[in-house]
Amino acid sequence: MISGEIPCDIVYENESVFAFRDIDPKAPTHILLIPRKHIRSINELGEPEQNLAGELLLTAKKIAKDEGIDESGFRTIFNTNSDGGQTVFHIHMHILGGRKMAWPPG
Amino acid sequence: MISGEIPCDIVYENESVFAFRDIDPKAPTHILLIPRKHIRSINELGEPEQNLAGELLLTAKKIAKDEGIDESGFRTIFNTNSDGGQTVFHIHMHILGGRKMAWPPG
Repeated sequence: MISGEIPCDIVYENESVFAFRDIDPKAPTHILLIPRKHIRSINELGEPEQNLAGELLLTAKKIAKDEGIDESGFRTIFNTNSDGGQTVFHIHMHILGGRKMAWPPG
Repeated sequence: MISGEIPCDIVYENESVFAFRDIDPKAPTHILLIPRKHIRSINELGEPEQNLAGELLLTAKKIAKDEGIDESGFRTIFNTNSDGGQTVFHIHMHILGGRKMAWPPG
C-alpha cells in the first residue's frame, strides 16, 4: 500500500502521511493513518521522528473533522507489539468514531 | 493534579509532560500521560502544539520501556469528546499493557 500497489480507499494524503479506511472496520468510521517513512512501531520513534509523530496527531484532528466525527467524538489508537495487538509492523494510527466507544479499550 | 494539589503516583515527569497511574486501571500497567500545557483534546491541537504532540508519543515509548512492557506490547489511546469516551477535558494519553489487549478497542 505504501508504494501504491494495492488499491485502497485513500481519505487523506500529503507528502509525509496517508490515510485509508480499515477493510475490517470496528466502527462506522474506522481509518488507518500511516507515515510514508517506514517506522516499525512506537518503540522505534526517536527525536528525528518527533515532528512526524506530532503530524500524525494533528492529521487525526483533520481527518476527524473531514469525517464529521470531531464534535461527536472519536478514539485514536496505536497498537505496539503482541500485547498491544499490533499485526502490521509499519506504525499506524487507528481512528474510530461514529458510535460510542466502550471502556475498557479492548 | 496539574498543580500538584492532589497526590498521585507520578511515574515520569519533565518540564512539559507528566505521567501517573490511572486510579481505575484496566490493565496491569495503565498510565496517563499529560502535557502541562492546557489543551482540551486532539481537536485543539494546532501547529504550535505539534512538537508537544510528538513528545507525547516519544514519551510513551520511554514509559513503556521503564514499565517493562515495550517488548511484550502496549496500547496507547487518546479519547476525544463523548463518542471517544473523553471525560476529562485536558488532553491525556492512556498507555495500557501487561496483558493482551483485545480487539475491537472498546
